[in-house]
Amino acid sequence: MNNNTANHPKVSRRSFLSSTAAVGAGLIVADVIAGTAQAAPLSAKEIAALPRITQEMVAPPFLPKHDQVAKGGPKVVEVRFVIEEKKMVVDEDGSEIWALTYNGSVPGPMIVVHQDDYIELTLVNPASSVLEHNIDFHASTGALGGGALTLISPGEECVLRFRASKPGVFVYHCAPGGVMTPYHVTHGMNGAIMVLPRDGLKDKDGKPITYDKAFFVGEQDYYLPRDAEGEYIKYDVAAEDFSDYLEVAATLTPSHIVFNGAVGALTGDNALTAKAGEAVLFIHAQANRDSRPHLIGGHGDYVWSTGSFADAPQIGLETWMIAGGAAGAAIYTFKQPGLYAYVNHNLIEAIIKGAAAHVMVEGKWDDDLMMQVKKPTAIN
Amino acid sequence: MNNNTANHPKVSRRSFLSSTAAVGAGLIVADVIAGTAQAAPLSAKEIAALPRITQEMVAPPFLPKHDQVAKGGPKVVEVRFVIEEKKMVVDEDGSEIWALTYNGSVPGPMIVVHQDDYIELTLVNPASSVLEHNIDFHASTGALGGGALTLISPGEECVLRFRASKPGVFVYHCAPGGVMTPYHVTHGMNGAIMVLPRDGLKDKDGKPITYDKAFFVGEQDYYLPRDAEGEYIKYDVAAEDFSDYLEVAATLTPSHIVFNGAVGALTGDNALTAKAGEAVLFIHAQANRDSRPHLIGGHGDYVWSTGSFADAPQIGLETWMIAGGAAGAAIYTFKQPGLYAYVNHNLIEAIIKGAAAHVMVEGKWDDDLMMQVKKPTAIN
Amino acid sequence: MNNNTANHPKVSRRSFLSSTAAVGAGLIVADVIAGTAQAAPLSAKEIAALPRITQEMVAPPFLPKHDQVAKGGPKVVEVRFVIEEKKMVVDEDGSEIWALTYNGSVPGPMIVVHQDDYIELTLVNPASSVLEHNIDFHASTGALGGGALTLISPGEECVLRFRASKPGVFVYHCAPGGVMTPYHVTHGMNGAIMVLPRDGLKDKDGKPITYDKAFFVGEQDYYLPRDAEGEYIKYDVAAEDFSDYLEVAATLTPSHIVFNGAVGALTGDNALTAKAGEAVLFIHAQANRDSRPHLIGGHGDYVWSTGSFADAPQIGLETWMIAGGAAGAAIYTFKQPGLYAYVNHNLIEAIIKGAAAHVMVEGKWDDDLMMQVKKPTAIN
Repeated sequence: MNNNTANHPKVSRRSFLSSTAAVGAGLIVADVIAGTAQAAPLSAKEIAALPRITQEMVAPPFLPKHDQVAKGGPKVVEVRFVIEEKKMVVDEDGSEIWALTYNGSVPGPMIVVHQDDYIELTLVNPASSVLEHNIDFHASTGALGGGALTLISPGEECVLRFRASKPGVFVYHCAPGGVMTPYHVTHGMNGAIMVLPRDGLKDKDGKPITYDKAFFVGEQDYYLPRDAEGEYIKYDVAAEDFSDYLEVAATLTPSHIVFNGAVGALTGDNALTAKAGEAVLFIHAQANRDSRPHLIGGHGDYVWSTGSFADAPQIGLETWMIAGGAAGAAIYTFKQPGLYAYVNHNLIEAIIKGAAAHVMVEGKWDDDLMMQVKKPTAIN
Repeated sequence: MNNNTANHPKVSRRSFLSSTAAVGAGLIVADVIAGTAQAAPLSAKEIAALPRITQEMVAPPFLPKHDQVAKGGPKVVEVRFVIEEKKMVVDEDGSEIWALTYNGSVPGPMIVVHQDDYIELTLVNPASSVLEHNIDFHASTGALGGGALTLISPGEECVLRFRASKPGVFVYHCAPGGVMTPYHVTHGMNGAIMVLPRDGLKDKDGKPITYDKAFFVGEQDYYLPRDAEGEYIKYDVAAEDFSDYLEVAATLTPSHIVFNGAVGALTGDNALTAKAGEAVLFIHAQANRDSRPHLIGGHGDYVWSTGSFADAPQIGLETWMIAGGAAGAAIYTFKQPGLYAYVNHNLIEAIIKGAAAHVMVEGKWDDDLMMQVKKPTAIN
Repeated sequence: MNNNTANHPKVSRRSFLSSTAAVGAGLIVADVIAGTAQAAPLSAKEIAALPRITQEMVAPPFLPKHDQVAKGGPKVVEVRFVIEEKKMVVDEDGSEIWALTYNGSVPGPMIVVHQDDYIELTLVNPASSVLEHNIDFHASTGALGGGALTLISPGEECVLRFRASKPGVFVYHCAPGGVMTPYHVTHGMNGAIMVLPRDGLKDKDGKPITYDKAFFVGEQDYYLPRDAEGEYIKYDVAAEDFSDYLEVAATLTPSHIVFNGAVGALTGDNALTAKAGEAVLFIHAQANRDSRPHLIGGHGDYVWSTGSFADAPQIGLETWMIAGGAAGAAIYTFKQPGLYAYVNHNLIEAIIKGAAAHVMVEGKWDDDLMMQVKKPTAIN
């Protein structure tokens, strides 16, 4: 099965986004650099002369090594994504999805650059794949975020370059057109890029904000079909669930809402770790559905809930809203040791559907902030 | 059928908002002008002496002709809305709704005024209508937004005047009371008004922001009942779907989520158009349900996600959240040619439910911002 | 039945948050006060020397007596919550829930303190209770917001002290672990605390903002199970609905969404009251699910939609978004008399599900702001 689904009535009548790719592609023949970019555009020759580095991708929740303040001028940052369609277990009951992934993880790897750097992505769709894929970067400008220039069949690869013109954290995701777009996105094919201001993060007064460590939490809504007995169906090959999926998706009610691909991916032995006194950056992406991150026992000291670093961060939040199709960022300096839960604070979504992580924090307890004055005792 | 639904148990037990209209109306006998308005209130004589203009309504996505910076002082802006209950096709399968409309379109027409102008609306409910109707302007102050003063039966008309005391984009909608309020709103009876600051839009530093063109995207959630075979039911007359609707509405899951009344109303041949270099204002209203506008391949350069022009716009957003019952505004200067999709970025809502538009943009491609370095090719 | 639900497969596989409590508790043995608090931490001796006051709890929508600007330095504010599991009627049809409450109301009582005050809560779980309970304060720092230090069985009590280090309005709720957390929260066991800046509320320019009266609106989503005939099931004892609840909760579709515990709790004879010219503070908490407060016929003059008083308020909003798991605040100075409806502006949630309140406002009508120029009349 591929996304040539013209025979499927639901697909054909919702296929208007498919045609977009073709039209967008038809317009990109012009090689001339127009002067419409906000920051000073560079000529082809100037871009060719920029320093080039390769960013080594790492699996979430970790971020690639990066400088918080850029050293030197803009660079071309080379990144390689290899698509992998893979069967993944999504909960403790062994429920399965044929996930669609960049580099084998849900979410895909975090890219980190500075504003005005150029990302040069090599996208590879192995011959073993079943489906066409592409990539739409919300951080980029034009051609459906690159989706119109990167649609590749199994056995193909392509290279896309774009300028990171806006600072912030941004979602990327597969968008092959028509109903295949939500299908791919809700099968795990999304991730995020962080575009840091060249001089780093700032508060509303322009004072630098730095972090000691950073985690990437990708929240994923899955829509797994069930059989007549209510059991999740297991499929033999990627996309075999397509028509069943359409029915579940239409309910707008996910079967699972998870962090980093599966229930428990960031809890228990997989818990995130930090130390009291450390400032931790949490990047939270949700490519399709609203979320509301909350750190139980902590706060968002600085929060960019829309993801834009061009706006001053909000201060001292209990919970922050992430719009579906966006990433947001929050920094918290841990003040107490212990195990924290980081959740989507629709608690049904967190605990019954799966959207929860743990952060184990070492340090010394601060009785000023909290103290158990009297332990649980029989009522006087 | 009218909204005298006392015999319907669901209606009677949720009818508390109905009584509101009566009570509110009972309190408006006082003709004295109280001194509680924020800006200098005008006497009846002063208002009578203001210049009067008639604003010609146009169907969305277009806006009436207007000045971005007001010329002269406050005016009385006369507007005429004629209610039309009409059968509309909402998708490519021919599914139908008996839409309830202002001036025949879903959403109703955009009104544009400047802060401290007075809107004088003539509301007409033709004798051919089945239902009572009224209008609640979120931009106005008092009497349920005017709802208590405008409830008219078929064959009646009335005139409401209100001062546009707060700058921003605001929803208006029908609110006849009780469950008829969500019923009318989710049958298309809503629109928006833009109240511009007299000296125009500003960024956070007070610098003027202008736009070259503007579009009004009204997102609509429909709750169409299905029969036992799963087919959408066709009804013979407006409001015949009432009790079936209540069951679907209670699921909180729309059958359709569309822009400007129907799937495809703003795509393909109906696409919006712009040119690279043009600053385009998108006003996005959702009278009932949250949305998250996103321009695929573009951004929100300036975003007023709450709709209030009294607050500085947010900058450089990938996606922005519109609360149900609110309108928001975003300006983007297109930088690349091609076909853009403007969507509610819950991609299931955009593509499976219908909340998507196209923007066709002319211009020259900018390789600095994006370049297809290598076309799709067999893997090396 | 208690929350030892290891035999329930759904519970056991989602029980990771249960273990959190134990681990957190294990880490709090250190008595040393670490220097990681943002504001100057006090020693045990210094805290012991602070003035102590007892705050008398009142049932919502009312707030305890408080000063808007703090008099003197930080205090220890003693508060007492007695848990009550009680059968409540939630709608006009007599549908019932075994609510889980603090002090017998849904939501629990509002606590009001100033930044850097210490809250010393005595939590009592009567021997007559069926379940274990605890409390997680979003306003606090560490130990799962206090949840790890306050888990008490029927017949027990405990005392927790925490410093109100961040200004704003914040949710508190029961969080006994695993699926019991959403279960308790969506059975009414939540409330809010307001932490005022010591020098009171301020606008973006630092100008003081005061209010004449304040109301606490706690929005509650219930997930009542139905029997085969579609009737809401009545249970004989608290928590008997547990396994049925899990099925309804998984749909993410509440049966009821109400203000202050039940449909109609704040309408009709229970309407809130105000006078034209009065500035009214509305605190809106939703411990689990997004909401979008809107005052029909009014506005939010000043809105802290995230609840943080460390950020400047937004101005002149028609509707504001509250993330699930957060409280927000809005101040409106009424300008017109009449009956206002204060709703969650998903109108289905407001009117079909129940999330609506009334505010009856006395005063003189202002024709400058709104006038019925022509009453409903036969069309000319």
